[in-house]
Amino acid sequence: MKITALAGGVGGAKLAHGLAQILPPEDLTVIVNTGDDFEHLGLYICPDLDTVCYTLAGLANPETGWGRANETWNTISNVETLGGPSWFRLGDQDIATHLERTRRLKEGQSLSQITKDFCKAWGIQHTILPMSDAPVRTMVDTDEGELAFQEYFVHRRCEPKVKGFRFDGVKEAEPAIGVKEALKSADAIVICPSNPWVSVDPILQVVKEIKKPVVAVSPIIGGKTVKGPAVKMYSELGIDPSALAVANHYRTILTGFVLDNQDLNIQTEIDNLAIETLVTNTLMNHLADRARLAHDVLHFIGSL
Amino acid sequence: MKITALAGGVGGAKLAHGLAQILPPEDLTVIVNTGDDFEHLGLYICPDLDTVCYTLAGLANPETGWGRANETWNTISNVETLGGPSWFRLGDQDIATHLERTRRLKEGQSLSQITKDFCKAWGIQHTILPMSDAPVRTMVDTDEGELAFQEYFVHRRCEPKVKGFRFDGVKEAEPAIGVKEALKSADAIVICPSNPWVSVDPILQVVKEIKKPVVAVSPIIGGKTVKGPAVKMYSELGIDPSALAVANHYRTILTGFVLDNQDLNIQTEIDNLAIETLVTNTLMNHLADRARLAHDVLHFIGSL
Repeated sequence: MKITALAGGVGGAKLAHGLAQILPPEDLTVIVNTGDDFEHLGLYICPDLDTVCYTLAGLANPETGWGRANETWNTISNVETLGGPSWFRLGDQDIATHLERTRRLKEGQSLSQITKDFCKAWGIQHTILPMSDAPVRTMVDTDEGELAFQEYFVHRRCEPKVKGFRFDGVKEAEPAIGVKEALKSADAIVICPSNPWVSVDPILQVVKEIKKPVVAVSPIIGGKTVKGPAVKMYSELGIDPSALAVANHYRTILTGFVLDNQDLNIQTEIDNLAIETLVTNTLMNHLADRARLAHDVLHFIGSL
Repeated sequence: MKITALAGGVGGAKLAHGLAQILPPEDLTVIVNTGDDFEHLGLYICPDLDTVCYTLAGLANPETGWGRANETWNTISNVETLGGPSWFRLGDQDIATHLERTRRLKEGQSLSQITKDFCKAWGIQHTILPMSDAPVRTMVDTDEGELAFQEYFVHRRCEPKVKGFRFDGVKEAEPAIGVKEALKSADAIVICPSNPWVSVDPILQVVKEIKKPVVAVSPIIGGKTVKGPAVKMYSELGIDPSALAVANHYRTILTGFVLDNQDLNIQTEIDNLAIETLVTNTLMNHLADRARLAHDVLHFIGSL
């Protein structure tokens, strides 16, 4: 079975990693959100792309899910000494990624070519693609005005109340080379358990249409998220935060929906949306959970 | 006694450090070569300026004389993994300096303002000035063509044979704010034991004229240098490399010249150039040697 997965950061990376443990390299492509990308300290930083790459390479920090394992922080602490911006915590190993990416972008290389080279250097065999080589910037409309995503997410710690989202540049942004092909050649598309508003929506808006069966895994479990502001966002937008809200979010494109055992009580409501459901344990606390959930998802897709 | 010192990298930084241990902050200004500055990995790097600052701040690597003490190399080793340029060894702490400087330059701050702020952050009380806020680039004419200085110095390890030097941009480059004032208000100018061709000449060409007594300390001792390619350069240019060659190099501006005990035999020849001489131990192997030599130099200046 050939799968193309859409992923944002930590949660998405975990399921992508699970899929990569089961599927051979030629059968899995992961398309990653780049709406969170930003320039900071002169560095071109792609948080979601790096999280997915580090995770598939086995280089990710197991505590945080993002950043590098065995990381040191000597550069950023010295930037702080010099009075520079240190609110975005960049580790020493991680900075190498941003420095070399920035250098290559300035040379004229595309983000997808750079990502391909980095994946090779990190020993990643599956294909990881940025959603686009063109800049798309997630802007968060809040009660304190519009904020660039990282400004909202990291600097302001998601404190301002969300009123809406805008993906700057999305209309002009072509999908990166390989994205359309991966969507066309896949047997099914898996939407990983990432934030629907700010991780998955940018990808969906860039790719515009998907003609294959789509299965989404809920990032909301028992009304909560493992990480990130999805629940807070739904609430602030006046939507009851639940797996049902997620299924509704994607309803126009969904064939199947995977929800957690904790949400068994809303399975019927999702069935009523004419979406097939799989109820299983979607928590990925341990490394082995990733392949287990990926296996369940693939089995579910096979049954549709 | 008010002193303005002209310095390049390691040797110059050592004597500047010695002078800083004796003179109060208001009586010492160090003007530093920026001809070696270059952009690399998207970072604006000022090797001599950083060496002088790190040395005066007590942050320099005591083994190498350049870079930071207790340095780690996690960023550059990861840049190497990604296939990026790693021939210029940038430590993790050191990278913070370049990142924050580059960020501020892009914001429109001047190199001298940035240097002032960094010195404050590092607890340096004496004044350290870049020779100019405008870019001046030392170009080395060699038997393999013209090379940018760091390309010649670090990447090619000074292997190509030198035929001459050119300081790109030097005609248009104004001295940085404070440089003219420091040269005017000083009782004497000390040329530190730095490379005459590539560390001191760029400064002299930027400042154009000096109307105060000038005392130079020879970087060549017994026909050798402690560090760097000065001897190789003199030889390749057809000049016998010696303290005499250095005295001759600066003869039009020199009042006094400090040479090492090992070069006692050429003292008379320098006297014959109508330059006052001091013969002393000019080696600065240990920390205490710096203040000792600085003391000798200041005493010599007082006697002129």
